[in-house]
Amino acid sequence: MRLTDKTDYALRVLMYLNQEKRLVTLNELAETLGVSKNNLIKISNHLAKVNFIDTIRGRSGGLLIKEETGRKSLKDIVISTEESFNIAECFSGRRCECFFLKKCLLKKGLNEALNAFMESLAQKTLNDVTIR
Amino acid sequence: MRLTDKTDYALRVLMYLNQEKRLVTLNELAETLGVSKNNLIKISNHLAKVNFIDTIRGRSGGLLIKEETGRKSLKDIVISTEESFNIAECFSGRRCECFFLKKCLLKKGLNEALNAFMESLAQKTLNDVTIR
Repeated sequence: MRLTDKTDYALRVLMYLNQEKRLVTLNELAETLGVSKNNLIKISNHLAKVNFIDTIRGRSGGLLIKEETGRKSLKDIVISTEESFNIAECFSGRRCECFFLKKCLLKKGLNEALNAFMESLAQKTLNDVTIR
Repeated sequence: MRLTDKTDYALRVLMYLNQEKRLVTLNELAETLGVSKNNLIKISNHLAKVNFIDTIRGRSGGLLIKEETGRKSLKDIVISTEESFNIAECFSGRRCECFFLKKCLLKKGLNEALNAFMESLAQKTLNDVTIR
C-alpha cells in the first residue's frame, strides 16, 4: 500500500515552501528534495491550479506558498493529489465480476479503514508538520 | 492508494472458502470470483503456507479453510499478503536524499494514519465479513 509519488513530492514541496516562506526556485527545490525538475514542474503546476501556491515566471521566478495553505490539513493535500482511493478492484466502479458484488461486507470494512486513515490525516495541518 | 491484487484476491478467496466450509476446487473459485486460475494457484500456495487453508492435491482435490482462520482479523490477512507498507519513499529504508530525512514530522503523521487504517482492520474478523 503506497501513496503515489505525486502525493509524496507535493507534500515535500509544500513542507519546504512553508518552511521558507519566500520565493524558491525549481533548481533549489530539485537540489534540496532530490526530485527531478521535470517532476517538480508537473507538481508545481498542479499545486498552483489548486491554489496552494503562486508561481512567478521568468528568470527571477519561482514558487511561493500562499499564506492560508499552512492551515490546510494533510487530508486536503492528499485528496488533491491522489488519483483515486479505489483500495480494491470493486471500488473503481468498473465492471467487476466478483461473486460478492451485490452484498459485500468486506467493502464496508475496507471503507471504514480508509476513513480512519483519512480522519487521521485530517487532524494534522501543513503547519503542524513544518519545522520552524 | 490501493491494496495489491494479491491482497484483494486473498481476501475474496478466504471469504468464499469461509462461507462454503467445504472442499472447493480452483475451477469453482475461478468461475465464482472472476480471478484467473493462474493467480488462484499463487494465492492458494501462499494461503496454505501461512496456514490459513489446507490444500488437497489430485483430481478430487481443492482448497479447504482451516477452522481457526475465520477468527483471524482483516489486519492479520492484509499483513500476510501486502509486500510492504512503505507508504512513501522514505519508509522503504532505501537511500533517500530528502532534505527532511533527519527530522521529518510528516513521516510521523503518515505513520499515525497507517496505524489508524490497520487498527480499523484489526477490529473485524474474517467471520465478521463472511455472509452466512
